[in-house]
Amino acid sequence: MTQTRIQQARAGVVTDEVRQVARAEGVPAEELAQRLARGEAVITRNRLRADLAPLGIGRGLRVKVNANVGTSRDRLDVAGELGKARAAAAAGAHAIMDLSTGGDLPAIRREIMRAAPLPMGTVPMYEAAARALARAASFCELTEDELFGVIEAHLESGVDFLTVHCGVTLETAERMQTEGRLMDVVSRGGALTLAWMRHNERDNPLYTAFDRLLELSARYDATLSLGDGFRPGATLDATDRAQLHELILLGELQQRALERGVQVMIEGPGHVPLDQIQANVLLEKRLCHGAPFYVLGPLVTDCAPGYDHITGAIGGAMAAWAGADFLCYVTPAEHLRLPDERDVHAGVVASLIAAQAGELARGRADARERERQMSQARRELDWDGMYRAAVDPALARRVRAEAPPTHDENTCSMCGEFCAIKVQKDHPPRPRKPALPAKSR
Amino acid sequence: MTQTRIQQARAGVVTDEVRQVARAEGVPAEELAQRLARGEAVITRNRLRADLAPLGIGRGLRVKVNANVGTSRDRLDVAGELGKARAAAAAGAHAIMDLSTGGDLPAIRREIMRAAPLPMGTVPMYEAAARALARAASFCELTEDELFGVIEAHLESGVDFLTVHCGVTLETAERMQTEGRLMDVVSRGGALTLAWMRHNERDNPLYTAFDRLLELSARYDATLSLGDGFRPGATLDATDRAQLHELILLGELQQRALERGVQVMIEGPGHVPLDQIQANVLLEKRLCHGAPFYVLGPLVTDCAPGYDHITGAIGGAMAAWAGADFLCYVTPAEHLRLPDERDVHAGVVASLIAAQAGELARGRADARERERQMSQARRELDWDGMYRAAVDPALARRVRAEAPPTHDENTCSMCGEFCAIKVQKDHPPRPRKPALPAKSR
Repeated sequence: MTQTRIQQARAGVVTDEVRQVARAEGVPAEELAQRLARGEAVITRNRLRADLAPLGIGRGLRVKVNANVGTSRDRLDVAGELGKARAAAAAGAHAIMDLSTGGDLPAIRREIMRAAPLPMGTVPMYEAAARALARAASFCELTEDELFGVIEAHLESGVDFLTVHCGVTLETAERMQTEGRLMDVVSRGGALTLAWMRHNERDNPLYTAFDRLLELSARYDATLSLGDGFRPGATLDATDRAQLHELILLGELQQRALERGVQVMIEGPGHVPLDQIQANVLLEKRLCHGAPFYVLGPLVTDCAPGYDHITGAIGGAMAAWAGADFLCYVTPAEHLRLPDERDVHAGVVASLIAAQAGELARGRADARERERQMSQARRELDWDGMYRAAVDPALARRVRAEAPPTHDENTCSMCGEFCAIKVQKDHPPRPRKPALPAKSR
Repeated sequence: MTQTRIQQARAGVVTDEVRQVARAEGVPAEELAQRLARGEAVITRNRLRADLAPLGIGRGLRVKVNANVGTSRDRLDVAGELGKARAAAAAGAHAIMDLSTGGDLPAIRREIMRAAPLPMGTVPMYEAAARALARAASFCELTEDELFGVIEAHLESGVDFLTVHCGVTLETAERMQTEGRLMDVVSRGGALTLAWMRHNERDNPLYTAFDRLLELSARYDATLSLGDGFRPGATLDATDRAQLHELILLGELQQRALERGVQVMIEGPGHVPLDQIQANVLLEKRLCHGAPFYVLGPLVTDCAPGYDHITGAIGGAMAAWAGADFLCYVTPAEHLRLPDERDVHAGVVASLIAAQAGELARGRADARERERQMSQARRELDWDGMYRAAVDPALARRVRAEAPPTHDENTCSMCGEFCAIKVQKDHPPRPRKPALPAKSR
């Protein structure tokens, strides 16, 4: 059987793919290969998608942003989802997850893959549950073989990373119940898995048959994104024993995956107060042996429905600074309705802002250089230069044009002739000493 | 002469005003009085505004949010500014600053004060410069007496707190010049002051004649908000010697003000990478002897024009967690144009989110209680309860209604029947042991 990229990296082979990612990230290829071998970084590309640009995620690489799209069982508008996928790519998302639960799921997945040429992730449990529900009274009638069949179908269709809630076990669920959470399970995949376990009085097949998952993933060299079904859904539930026990299990599974040569990311919260984010990143890095951390938000307050792209940007910036590698966007529609195209754009931009703020705080040279370019342009009142360095050039241009300056086109309508930069240009410091004649060379 | 509230507090008098603020904040009145006496908290109310609810800002009190409104010399639409003032108050701003620089400034100030019954701050230098410019070729023709005349007029008209850039001195300016900043001075008041100093080859009268400022402020028991003219205007300039030297001066002035019984807040940056915010708060609290810290943002990246309410919310949350007391909002229009009413609303809400996130991270009981209420409502799929706990109830209600659920009105269109909360309700944990018959009492 073909080696996976972890196995190749472990054997000391530096592939063209690794060189390509290393070049894009500005890191030495040998170093990236070592990180792949240790499981500290992943390249999210299904073996079947040679046409896709490979994306690196993990230690030493730039922070990446994922956008979720997909139909719901309430809203089935495929054209709308394709528009959202394109909007996400145009806004600068690095990856896309198809979370569709309504309609012809394989067809929708293929279409989204075509619409946005980005690494794609899915949550196979959604399709598995929907399939079971189509033929039975409850999704709990889902069989283990049916579930793994859907997983295989996703991989065959080119999916690059799979969210699998392997850490949702009877033991962790009991830990949660005896603690008494405010919100219990808020992960959709986690809730479906838990309900299945309760209904069937059996443990989670994704946990008990984890090796089967590893075999499938290895075949396509796909990445497992170990989902956190017990992620806190309320800030007051953050960092509790259910979350941490699951994280311990995920770290055990990550070790087994690494041995088998299967790439792993670990998914993280969720709803977390600002003061607990650094600890959450540290715990993930420690318990999961440096595996890339893929966080959802985190949202630093529960009290801002309609603005969760902002609560997520606050948490995302903090997480990125602390070492998170991959930010799952949150849109303004979160907790309220399925997002539309505008929400998707806003969500991606907010996460890109968080990524830049986090990388700047880490002291990354490329993030600092971007800040320098923006400030240089501002100092020179060079508006085109400002737009070039902006996270959303078109929006910046449009906002300024809505109320352009009336007296001096170099300024803006906020300060006009009292523009601090202009005032200083007009009143430069006096020379401290009489100027000497310039020396001739 | 009537005592100021600091003098009263120092004498052990606990006034009705202090009791009123203490009640609103849920703190003991005696403790608040001691904090006033030590300069760790202020009550921003001009002696002439007995009708205004007094607002406390500082240690142990809730984090407050300020909204800036005001005409520019490019855009003079008084009705528009009144609309913005009302929008700021409606969105939940705790204070408002009139930063008008165009039109009949005293009349605009009075009207804004009437439109939004909130503590008002101003930057008298703007009016002083505009007055000088109206009668001379350059605002640098402004005289010291003219400047203090404007300050007195502001206080007479009821202004509650004054931003005065007392720390902009020739010495600090030279420190900045020899360092070589990317952005030099970006504070409008700071830039005007610096230009005046360079033109007149004299030091800043707000520094050299600080006692005159103290006498005026004491008369009205107004609060001096010591502006940071050298605040960084680029993340790469943050925490440099010009900023720190000015902060040292502001701490010296704060001590003199406290002796004279005049309340002081200290203004802070500006543009600051996430990893430097905590240090900035610590330095302010140390160098300025625990005086309330009033931060502008801070913006954690320069690269998001059009989204600076988000970059400001990230920095504001971090600052509030670290101990900042008062957040000056930043709107999406910052760096691009004068904000409109929508921008004002967005800016206030973003700052309120930052305040809540910061207070939650500090572990404040009231912030935790609000989170609990939201999560409780979510757990019960109680939408009205969610709206009540939301920072912007009307927006949350509107967003959900834009695409309501189609199958189950208790859910939302994001997850529909796969709603994690609903799935769990439908599949509760099985009882661990056979249920015993309930004992009769």
